[in-house]
Amino acid sequence: MSSTYGEHLKLSIFGQSHGAAIGMTLDGIPAGLPVDADALQVFLNRRAPGQGDWSTPRKEEDRPEFLSGILDGFTCGAPIAAVIRNCNTRSRDYSELRDCPRPGHADYTAQIKYGGFQDAAGGGHFSGRLTAPLCIAGGLCKQWLALKGIRIGAHIAGIGTVQDEDFDPLDPQLDAVDSAFPTLSPQAGKAMQEQIALVKAHGDSLGGAIQCAVTGLPAGLGEPMFGGVESRIASIVYGIPAVKAVEFGAGSQAARMRGSQCNDPFILKNGQIRTETNCAGGILGGITNGMPVLLRVSVKPTPSIARSQQSVSLSRQAPKSLTVRGRHDPCIVPRAVPVVEAAAAIAIFDMILGNTQTDRRKNHGSE
Amino acid sequence: MSSTYGEHLKLSIFGQSHGAAIGMTLDGIPAGLPVDADALQVFLNRRAPGQGDWSTPRKEEDRPEFLSGILDGFTCGAPIAAVIRNCNTRSRDYSELRDCPRPGHADYTAQIKYGGFQDAAGGGHFSGRLTAPLCIAGGLCKQWLALKGIRIGAHIAGIGTVQDEDFDPLDPQLDAVDSAFPTLSPQAGKAMQEQIALVKAHGDSLGGAIQCAVTGLPAGLGEPMFGGVESRIASIVYGIPAVKAVEFGAGSQAARMRGSQCNDPFILKNGQIRTETNCAGGILGGITNGMPVLLRVSVKPTPSIARSQQSVSLSRQAPKSLTVRGRHDPCIVPRAVPVVEAAAAIAIFDMILGNTQTDRRKNHGSE
Amino acid sequence: MSSTYGEHLKLSIFGQSHGAAIGMTLDGIPAGLPVDADALQVFLNRRAPGQGDWSTPRKEEDRPEFLSGILDGFTCGAPIAAVIRNCNTRSRDYSELRDCPRPGHADYTAQIKYGGFQDAAGGGHFSGRLTAPLCIAGGLCKQWLALKGIRIGAHIAGIGTVQDEDFDPLDPQLDAVDSAFPTLSPQAGKAMQEQIALVKAHGDSLGGAIQCAVTGLPAGLGEPMFGGVESRIASIVYGIPAVKAVEFGAGSQAARMRGSQCNDPFILKNGQIRTETNCAGGILGGITNGMPVLLRVSVKPTPSIARSQQSVSLSRQAPKSLTVRGRHDPCIVPRAVPVVEAAAAIAIFDMILGNTQTDRRKNHGSE
Amino acid sequence: MSSTYGEHLKLSIFGQSHGAAIGMTLDGIPAGLPVDADALQVFLNRRAPGQGDWSTPRKEEDRPEFLSGILDGFTCGAPIAAVIRNCNTRSRDYSELRDCPRPGHADYTAQIKYGGFQDAAGGGHFSGRLTAPLCIAGGLCKQWLALKGIRIGAHIAGIGTVQDEDFDPLDPQLDAVDSAFPTLSPQAGKAMQEQIALVKAHGDSLGGAIQCAVTGLPAGLGEPMFGGVESRIASIVYGIPAVKAVEFGAGSQAARMRGSQCNDPFILKNGQIRTETNCAGGILGGITNGMPVLLRVSVKPTPSIARSQQSVSLSRQAPKSLTVRGRHDPCIVPRAVPVVEAAAAIAIFDMILGNTQTDRRKNHGSE
Repeated sequence: MSSTYGEHLKLSIFGQSHGAAIGMTLDGIPAGLPVDADALQVFLNRRAPGQGDWSTPRKEEDRPEFLSGILDGFTCGAPIAAVIRNCNTRSRDYSELRDCPRPGHADYTAQIKYGGFQDAAGGGHFSGRLTAPLCIAGGLCKQWLALKGIRIGAHIAGIGTVQDEDFDPLDPQLDAVDSAFPTLSPQAGKAMQEQIALVKAHGDSLGGAIQCAVTGLPAGLGEPMFGGVESRIASIVYGIPAVKAVEFGAGSQAARMRGSQCNDPFILKNGQIRTETNCAGGILGGITNGMPVLLRVSVKPTPSIARSQQSVSLSRQAPKSLTVRGRHDPCIVPRAVPVVEAAAAIAIFDMILGNTQTDRRKNHGSE
Repeated sequence: MSSTYGEHLKLSIFGQSHGAAIGMTLDGIPAGLPVDADALQVFLNRRAPGQGDWSTPRKEEDRPEFLSGILDGFTCGAPIAAVIRNCNTRSRDYSELRDCPRPGHADYTAQIKYGGFQDAAGGGHFSGRLTAPLCIAGGLCKQWLALKGIRIGAHIAGIGTVQDEDFDPLDPQLDAVDSAFPTLSPQAGKAMQEQIALVKAHGDSLGGAIQCAVTGLPAGLGEPMFGGVESRIASIVYGIPAVKAVEFGAGSQAARMRGSQCNDPFILKNGQIRTETNCAGGILGGITNGMPVLLRVSVKPTPSIARSQQSVSLSRQAPKSLTVRGRHDPCIVPRAVPVVEAAAAIAIFDMILGNTQTDRRKNHGSE
Repeated sequence: MSSTYGEHLKLSIFGQSHGAAIGMTLDGIPAGLPVDADALQVFLNRRAPGQGDWSTPRKEEDRPEFLSGILDGFTCGAPIAAVIRNCNTRSRDYSELRDCPRPGHADYTAQIKYGGFQDAAGGGHFSGRLTAPLCIAGGLCKQWLALKGIRIGAHIAGIGTVQDEDFDPLDPQLDAVDSAFPTLSPQAGKAMQEQIALVKAHGDSLGGAIQCAVTGLPAGLGEPMFGGVESRIASIVYGIPAVKAVEFGAGSQAARMRGSQCNDPFILKNGQIRTETNCAGGILGGITNGMPVLLRVSVKPTPSIARSQQSVSLSRQAPKSLTVRGRHDPCIVPRAVPVVEAAAAIAIFDMILGNTQTDRRKNHGSE
Repeated sequence: MSSTYGEHLKLSIFGQSHGAAIGMTLDGIPAGLPVDADALQVFLNRRAPGQGDWSTPRKEEDRPEFLSGILDGFTCGAPIAAVIRNCNTRSRDYSELRDCPRPGHADYTAQIKYGGFQDAAGGGHFSGRLTAPLCIAGGLCKQWLALKGIRIGAHIAGIGTVQDEDFDPLDPQLDAVDSAFPTLSPQAGKAMQEQIALVKAHGDSLGGAIQCAVTGLPAGLGEPMFGGVESRIASIVYGIPAVKAVEFGAGSQAARMRGSQCNDPFILKNGQIRTETNCAGGILGGITNGMPVLLRVSVKPTPSIARSQQSVSLSRQAPKSLTVRGRHDPCIVPRAVPVVEAAAAIAIFDMILGNTQTDRRKNHGSE
């Protein structure tokens, strides 16, 4: 199970941070879909490090090689496989991480689960680096969704104590947020970067939130109960390292609302049925209602911080003070923005592939 | 696929609110597990209506009949099937709901998806009533987890503007919350009930939040990426109607934290490796670390309110004012508490069934 | 997993031979499909016992009650659940079967797998009786396939040493085989019944073969490798008790052929691309080519025979002579014919639900 | 779906015959399993071409590169990914195959399914070359099964009209069949090679059969109905190109047997419960009984023959005579032997991973 996702498409992600390569296979994609490799690279670059002071200067070259599934710029019906070679392979000794787990990381849980056999170098299979192949799959799905008029965009909703504006829930400003540090409010973006710089100077890190919107979705997508849009998106978004909360529409605010506030009245607009507000985040009963789908994802602060931390030596069963070496992003949130888009794109494309909507519209009630 | 859940067990839930019966099949359960039917009934009764002023006086008899899979009080290895007969079957005309969808309900999305063929009576397959078979499956899983020392409990974390105390994240007070209106603070519980009464008098409803804790879990449960504990639990919890947010550990608060606050230091306690705090909610890299798993679920206010609401007539394509008939819970949150427990129990039992932990503990690093 | 089938639809079968009821849930079926309950009953009756000297006189009433998923004669999009109540419930002591397993039955393997907790009465979950709910699901799928012009039929290809004629592989005579003892050659049918009577008189039983044909399938159905039509059909047909061989097209005869004999030449017929012969059984590379799909299923003789047999006492770990009590079919093959049709119908309907064919026909080669 | 297999492990196979590479990902494998790369290469070489007159002299170098999942000779718990680079990449024009499909190949069905977008070169994703990554996965599973005392072997049961002896069903001679042209009878092997040479000289090809045995399996493996050992093995074996029949134990011969012949009597042998014969092929009710599992796989003749064949031009919709170019195996059966072993190994290892046997043996019957 583990690193495999999808009901209709089958995404399998592989690789360890310092192994030979990371990559993905994506099975179940129809033939004849165009692939724009340049646009995909632009999308992948949004996830790459080294784009500003807020991210690590470490340079990874995330250029995928497609091994199969694409011919002359179109999907050919066979599974798509792509790999990214790792440059930094096992250059130093990681035995310390096996013995002294970093707080907030998967070092300890991997040690328990895999009995010491895990690849501990750079976090191994648990590294944030594994979001690169997720972005290959998601970047492709995003292109294919765009062919159907479905667009996905996300912005940094908050970092530390600084909050961005929210998307207009009825008409999210997707064109405004396609940058390396995407915020709706330039002031908020500036304040966030300042807060990151400050925290970094103290050898610490910051968490943040990402708001993602999907527009152009038809009504009727999703299945009841466990096949609902929220279930399908949440299960893949929680596959992104460091995510600790996933909310839809009014999200946790809905808990404080009254029905008369939270219920979105149905209205007619240009002959189309819409809702006047969008507390539902475009989803009722797990199924899209034709309004924008809105989700909010909370990301914990980067666990790798420069400060000394308290841990234990597993071999000696004794307390041990730990200082994490290397240069790490003081805040992973900006780079996680395209990853959330990718995850949402994969979940939605999967649901579209399996959608079984009854075409014959018949109003039993009015017969 | 819609109403089916599970990687190793297979839960399939069926039924419509006013159909002949609702029920579930649960496949993949090992033979020889004891079934305490009385304890299950006590659990199911926590979800039943008519327990106080905060819930609808409507009386459903949620007594499951087991058709298969249990013999002489033990699972027999065959799929377990159970049904609950519906008493209120299609007593009146529901054609209006097909034509004039209730705001906040799945009436409209079902109409679009199923083209008018859906069972609209009482919400059909989208009714909260379908959480009863979920509680049958979850109540059984809860019993089986208890045999392994794994306990699950939940309380009302908030209703409207009233907040309960939080569980002690290091040692949740599960024994304190096994009542029909479970709160840790009796005062908070009282204030919540008052707020519900007030809102009900205004023909309105209230949302709320539920905090759930799982104790006794071994470290090492869960799989990387999409098979992580958060992914697996979120995907089933989002199958509960009205859930709009699922958070783990510090949840959305993690977005405002610094790494030095959010990282849980590792410590030794009675010879066991523990963490000093529990912002991770017991999960690192998707895998349990042996600390209590904590999640928070936000539930939107009951969409069925007595007040007149704005909707549209689908047949006439014109605005229409709608008043929802019948008596409905002014706040569904108290009855949703055991449902969240049930969902968590199912997800965790599923993961335990498929767990592939490497027994041979070997510290490669220290060799 | 066990008693659950399907990639796009999800079929779950439950029940034990002498439990309260047997039944099925069928999830993932689109709304708006008509259900002809009378035609379904006619189909189910083909599987029922007591139709002739060749079958047991035991009388089961296989009349399903639909609990959900069907409204006013149409599927409503919610999972379909149906149950058949058992009349013969646990009337006598089955402890002997737990201690002294019947040769050829699952008594021993169930004992080992379920550690003595299994329901041994009448074979429990392993009983041929469980093919009744399979026929409910398959009978419905057959109806829905017929709406698309896809027809499924089967006949007794052989019993003991008597062989029926084969279907015309290019144009199977489906109309000729819709009876309780379906053979293409009346003489063969008569000889088979005589052979059954003879063997029955000796307290023995007979195996046989079933040939099944599917017509009207579009070309292009099926997926490569493990998603091929053969894989999907074989995996469900092998779920029918007593099946020991599944072959497609020329089947095991292909092993003795030359390429020049086995390759089906492509021809044009009435402007359509067809093959001149049909050794492929309508499947190339796992994908339909538009010709009839043909499969042959071999069924072992009923293991319950009147003669004394050699077994062991598990408790005493000693040899024991066993005489199976009760009246059993001397040959199960006639009643298995609709079961094979049902299994094929389910597999094909599942593949149709998930089919992702590229509509835009473009001949790259001729550009 | 398509090129993905497994309930507990997840195998995904990718690549096209003349694409950049072929390969596989294998997810869900526990950490700490040893990998013997040299033994794997020996296994893969059994599938490689150029081993004798019966196979094509074409030289492929099937040396896998492992990209992830293996560290210091042990599985590390992360998904295993391996690739084999293709040397022969798209060296000539394959547009003719898109326009004029080869009889017996998937050219036509791929054209219909993928609308002309498929990779037609060398059969693309439908090429027998894709069995190389299947053998990587299967070769690994075979190694891991051997650690548990489970052994898998296969031999050529027949080619054309020449039949080999059968395995002793109670004690298959696995040590006798580990060669490039494995037969139990040396004379039969010689006769087969002569028949291949003869047919090759006539520009034709031959089919054949493979018998496979699995020893050392515990009793109790497999799940009821669709999770049975036959279902699981058949569904992967039918993923091997050219397979047209899969039989277990007595197979299609069971159709001609009487119950008194086909039922395997239970006996005690050295204090163990065994059966006196093995018509069941080690499987009762889909579950292993501790006897050797036996299956027989029929493979059609290589469709690529030197003789001129009848086909059609899709673009001109006119008959066309086709001569397949290139050098092809006159009989693929010898090279398919390890592929059948690989498929069986994967299916069985998958079932072992998910096996939920009730340990507590309790004989209810004798209480």
